[in-house]
Amino acid sequence: MGIIVQKFGGTSVANTDKIRRAARRVIKAVENGYSVVVVASARGKQTDEFITDAKELHPDPPAREMDQLFSTGEQQSIALLAMAIINAGYDAISFTGSQVKIMTDGVYSKARIKSIDTARIHRQLEQGKVVLVAGFQGIDEDENIVTLGRGGSDTTAVALAAALDAQECEIYTDVDGIYTTDPRIFKNAAKMKQISFDEMLELASLGSSVMYVRAIEVGKNHNVKIHVRSSSEETEGTMIIPEESQMEEVVVSGATVQKDIAMITLTGIDNKPGNIANIFAQLAKARVAVSGITKTEISTEKANLSFTVGVLELNAAKETLEQIKDKVSYENITICEDVAGVSVVGVGMRTHYEVAEKMFASLAKAKINIHSITSSQISISCVVDETQAEKALQAVCAAFELDKPAGQRNG
Amino acid sequence: MGIIVQKFGGTSVANTDKIRRAARRVIKAVENGYSVVVVASARGKQTDEFITDAKELHPDPPAREMDQLFSTGEQQSIALLAMAIINAGYDAISFTGSQVKIMTDGVYSKARIKSIDTARIHRQLEQGKVVLVAGFQGIDEDENIVTLGRGGSDTTAVALAAALDAQECEIYTDVDGIYTTDPRIFKNAAKMKQISFDEMLELASLGSSVMYVRAIEVGKNHNVKIHVRSSSEETEGTMIIPEESQMEEVVVSGATVQKDIAMITLTGIDNKPGNIANIFAQLAKARVAVSGITKTEISTEKANLSFTVGVLELNAAKETLEQIKDKVSYENITICEDVAGVSVVGVGMRTHYEVAEKMFASLAKAKINIHSITSSQISISCVVDETQAEKALQAVCAAFELDKPAGQRNG
Repeated sequence: MGIIVQKFGGTSVANTDKIRRAARRVIKAVENGYSVVVVASARGKQTDEFITDAKELHPDPPAREMDQLFSTGEQQSIALLAMAIINAGYDAISFTGSQVKIMTDGVYSKARIKSIDTARIHRQLEQGKVVLVAGFQGIDEDENIVTLGRGGSDTTAVALAAALDAQECEIYTDVDGIYTTDPRIFKNAAKMKQISFDEMLELASLGSSVMYVRAIEVGKNHNVKIHVRSSSEETEGTMIIPEESQMEEVVVSGATVQKDIAMITLTGIDNKPGNIANIFAQLAKARVAVSGITKTEISTEKANLSFTVGVLELNAAKETLEQIKDKVSYENITICEDVAGVSVVGVGMRTHYEVAEKMFASLAKAKINIHSITSSQISISCVVDETQAEKALQAVCAAFELDKPAGQRNG
Repeated sequence: MGIIVQKFGGTSVANTDKIRRAARRVIKAVENGYSVVVVASARGKQTDEFITDAKELHPDPPAREMDQLFSTGEQQSIALLAMAIINAGYDAISFTGSQVKIMTDGVYSKARIKSIDTARIHRQLEQGKVVLVAGFQGIDEDENIVTLGRGGSDTTAVALAAALDAQECEIYTDVDGIYTTDPRIFKNAAKMKQISFDEMLELASLGSSVMYVRAIEVGKNHNVKIHVRSSSEETEGTMIIPEESQMEEVVVSGATVQKDIAMITLTGIDNKPGNIANIFAQLAKARVAVSGITKTEISTEKANLSFTVGVLELNAAKETLEQIKDKVSYENITICEDVAGVSVVGVGMRTHYEVAEKMFASLAKAKINIHSITSSQISISCVVDETQAEKALQAVCAAFELDKPAGQRNG
């Protein structure tokens, strides 16, 4: 048997009962003959408490010290989980990111993993120990602690699975898999047995919060089999796997809604080469992630440009755009915060052409106005009024029969 | 100006208000021209919370994982304190024990510091930064985190002051200095302006809990000026310094009471060479610290032996003594848990001979029965009934006028 990596999220280690339950999961894998590497997140609401304390002391807490503070949460989780495993009669040892040399690019609060020294982990596994690794954290060359940003513990788990050539990376969470859409909005959402990396990447970047983009990217790049499953139930979850040919038969795999976005429209931009590229270059410099870009030429000299940004980045976007107003010469800027994105995702869209039409028809039938439309090879997104977002998602889900398992849909 | 090390205990960083107050202390020293190195303990009751969680998961939590857990408390404190200092407009950077290579002998939960890599600290001080170091923790050669045992943050601070050749090591705490005795029992206890390392060592090992033995030992060995003072008041505290000649004029500097001890008496021991040494060797092996040893020969063949141990180590002591019963052949073992030690300490005792007599007379006058007596060059200790302990301490304090400053006593 090989190595298995198990990752437990914050809710799965929130208290001692849940830690014991996670320990039983680990032990079951050991008893099934696996060498087990465990990654844990900070317990429950701890991260929020850190932010509260920090903000009381500094309105904009310095990133290095914030990472120094944050990283203690995962360190506590792995130590406690190790105790529970040892108490059950199995040997275990916990390591911080520093102790197993999770080297990163050193960017505080959003570092990327460059390498992991797996020798120490292998030595412990060979001695029959369960190895626990603190998620979400790494170090730079001077041993400063850096964290990996949102979903960072998933990234740690998938990166470890890649580095250790593990058979599987299990992501234990408070949902029992990945659903066609958010069941809180479309209550008959169906659980997927499997999904491709590309589809999962689109879902994640378009609003699904089960896993974050970075971890999926690492999984895709290193071909890591990721199993998203429930920490409280025994059922199989959803496998994220490389694309298989029969996947294309499923036209739309899932749908998402993204509420915390704002649409920015610039009118009367000089329609000359490089001008629009310059706008996005400046926004990137200010670390504003942009999506849903649409451009309309209103004359040979002038164009309008719309795009969406996360509401958290809206201020940075506004400042940047004001600074470059003269340079790129636009006439007007309008910002609409009361919008939402509704998207459908599916690798089958590459070969099936009726998806856009079906989506727009379902939204029209539900009397939902579409502000802008963007698409990729495997997704279509519409910006709608935020008040209509849930209704829009429900309409789209019904149209694509997302209440049924993939094999049982009509078209 | 030189370097000053400031140590803030758990109560001095218990919440954000107190952290801000500690930050103001730090900044004041910076404004006075010092390069400041700060050591902080875990916040308030955090250590107790860790123990509660750990014990729920393992009745006897494994030491390595316990140290992994504990060390996060100090890491949080230094990060938060750094934020408060930075927010006030001063530059600061925090380091874990690992980051400044506080190398230890690697004994979990009671490691001893072997060396500190001060180069990194000096570099940051030269850039004008306040350097914060997590107390209580170090690493072994494999970067496993180890903690330094009770009073470990004091030890970190004093060891850092020694390694950095600091002008002074300030210990900020919730009392405003070292008193002649515990003011909760003898309410007129007087604050001492200064005390010698040797006296402080005796007070600490005989029950004073203001500072623990290990930190004072390090201070003595490296001649570090230690200033114990209040984190909330501006008043001068107590200086712990090398012995000065005029100190001998003060016969008794302080008095202590030690309640959590038990007296063990072995009767009818074989009175042959090496037998008693063997008993204490076995107890030492079981990590039982012994004090107050008295031996009485009852015949040429037989002797009785009494000594005290901490109540926490009583079980280990009993087990050890049962195991070696045949080997050392004693007849009977009696254990008395309802006892306490009352002691007086003073370097002047080396040259003044009436201390013992005066102490016994004061206890006799208060009708307190003395179970056993032991003494060192600078201390005398009596074991008394626990119910009489406070009365005994008060009698002794009154006899030696410990309500008056050292210079104003009669005899």
